[in-house]
Amino acid sequence: MVETIQWINDTVVMIDQTRLPLEENYVSCRTYEEVAEAIRRMTIRGAPAIGVAAAMGVAVGILHASETDLDAQMAEICATLAATRPTAVNLFWAIDRMKRIYAGVAGKPIAEVRRRLVEEALLVREEDIAVCRAIGHHGAALVPAQKTVLTHCNAGALATAGYGTALGVIRAAVEAGKQIDVFADETRPFLQGARLTVWELQQDGIPTTLITDNMAGHFMKSGRIGCVVVGADRIAANGDVANKVGTYSVAVLAKENGVPFFVAAPISTLDLSLASGNAIPIEQRAAEEVTHLFGQRVAPQGTSVENPAFDVTPARYVAAIITEKGVARAPYEESLRKLVS
Amino acid sequence: MVETIQWINDTVVMIDQTRLPLEENYVSCRTYEEVAEAIRRMTIRGAPAIGVAAAMGVAVGILHASETDLDAQMAEICATLAATRPTAVNLFWAIDRMKRIYAGVAGKPIAEVRRRLVEEALLVREEDIAVCRAIGHHGAALVPAQKTVLTHCNAGALATAGYGTALGVIRAAVEAGKQIDVFADETRPFLQGARLTVWELQQDGIPTTLITDNMAGHFMKSGRIGCVVVGADRIAANGDVANKVGTYSVAVLAKENGVPFFVAAPISTLDLSLASGNAIPIEQRAAEEVTHLFGQRVAPQGTSVENPAFDVTPARYVAAIITEKGVARAPYEESLRKLVS
Repeated sequence: MVETIQWINDTVVMIDQTRLPLEENYVSCRTYEEVAEAIRRMTIRGAPAIGVAAAMGVAVGILHASETDLDAQMAEICATLAATRPTAVNLFWAIDRMKRIYAGVAGKPIAEVRRRLVEEALLVREEDIAVCRAIGHHGAALVPAQKTVLTHCNAGALATAGYGTALGVIRAAVEAGKQIDVFADETRPFLQGARLTVWELQQDGIPTTLITDNMAGHFMKSGRIGCVVVGADRIAANGDVANKVGTYSVAVLAKENGVPFFVAAPISTLDLSLASGNAIPIEQRAAEEVTHLFGQRVAPQGTSVENPAFDVTPARYVAAIITEKGVARAPYEESLRKLVS
Repeated sequence: MVETIQWINDTVVMIDQTRLPLEENYVSCRTYEEVAEAIRRMTIRGAPAIGVAAAMGVAVGILHASETDLDAQMAEICATLAATRPTAVNLFWAIDRMKRIYAGVAGKPIAEVRRRLVEEALLVREEDIAVCRAIGHHGAALVPAQKTVLTHCNAGALATAGYGTALGVIRAAVEAGKQIDVFADETRPFLQGARLTVWELQQDGIPTTLITDNMAGHFMKSGRIGCVVVGADRIAANGDVANKVGTYSVAVLAKENGVPFFVAAPISTLDLSLASGNAIPIEQRAAEEVTHLFGQRVAPQGTSVENPAFDVTPARYVAAIITEKGVARAPYEESLRKLVS
């Protein structure tokens, strides 16, 4: 299994997800600014992985901070990391967690502050893998055998510290002996499905078929798809789910065709401070992601583009939300709060 | 306006749609085999344009046929052209039309046979432009002003002999003074939207925004889209519509969001011999169309792919079918037969 993100010799080492599967390059971030830039340009992506990167970014920042005015430096580090991407709440969750640890060791010798923050960042990473395993365990039972699982984007090992959320459910179903195969939406514009999900599942020997995003409906109508499993970037208190753009379309098509639509995500993806998905900020990314592919222009010069990176799937399309603490079903206002408490 | 397909000095000249918008190349086909190959490799595409190409292919074939055993050569020419692509019925419609003309001049001097077939092929082309204008006229009234029109694939001048079907409706609405803009699905895997629709509408100065296919639902949910207009490759007697893969998804999302979904197509796209869309053959194309873009690999080696080029939208999602003879609405069994008779 590939390592998405590691802490090696006080350096944050990530596999470069912008180059996969053409090249298996690793990027070393020695400063918090480099970590922030890696998140922004999607060297690392996926809500839980972004959370781990942010925690490690805080740790690497404090490692190199000077002893004087540490509070101000901590604030600057956290603000820089928080400004990278707006939608995945795990980013803010991880930063807040690091802030709490920092507050707990305030006034202690800087060596202890550093040790404690590095320790916590490593814990965030380790917990994330355990969380994914638990999500897989809870989700595996929901996956119909002898059918195809459709997934969108990459909610796999590469989107987490390991094992994956949606792909964790698929992996756990396969480990439980279920005969399934996977359809992977290629997931334009960044092609996380074609480049990352297919690559990951190939390495695990799980039979996977690549389709373009606009084919998903056709195969749901054909009766081949047993369920849909996707990840999430932020889930509101009412169960509305922000996830990679195109998720909403898949959810509507699943409902129309009687296919259960499951969301697999850690508790850290819940944002119960938001009543509904309408309040979730949707990141707009550069036009070049749509007009170019690996540097190759595919649309005319001067093309106007909209490039929302996420969309919001209303809770009424979601059959279940699979977390490490168990499976929530509608009404989500109640079931999500119960899981958290 | 660009010329999609022309008859110049007994040669079929087509703009190469596989290279647009990077290069504006023209391909000259001097034999019917070259025309067949151009259809197969999508140098020319779009149901009405394929019909024109097939008619010209028959004409160029008979021009070069020897006088002896002309019937057998005609049969071979028609069979070769008919075997290029299975879904668009306009191909078979055009070939049948050329066969009827051939039957009408059977036994006449070969010069007259040749003259008559060339004449008919030119007529097919000219009629197609007039048909598109009439479709535009009928459709323009249906387009809500002050809103965005969403279209999928390219049902434009490049998919016809000129003016377009779905884009004909958009052009006619603009010519009628309606304030509209266009969202163009990029339309993976062949990117007809990004490469052809954006390019065409840019030349006409119609404001157009490119989106990836999986964003269409998001913008329909946002209330920005006033209607959807697409073309068709074959329409069954009950109003089921085969069109570029992804059309079904757009139609479901439109219905879910209360957005009218219109199909614009010539009468030659109707196949009233088929009771429903279930009987329409769906072309499967090469995996490389999905795994590569302009020669650049975007998925891992050994990726399994499904690549249906079309899907079928059940009639219940179709608000109206716009033809050159008028607008058909449900129940389509009656309204389509009435238009034809």
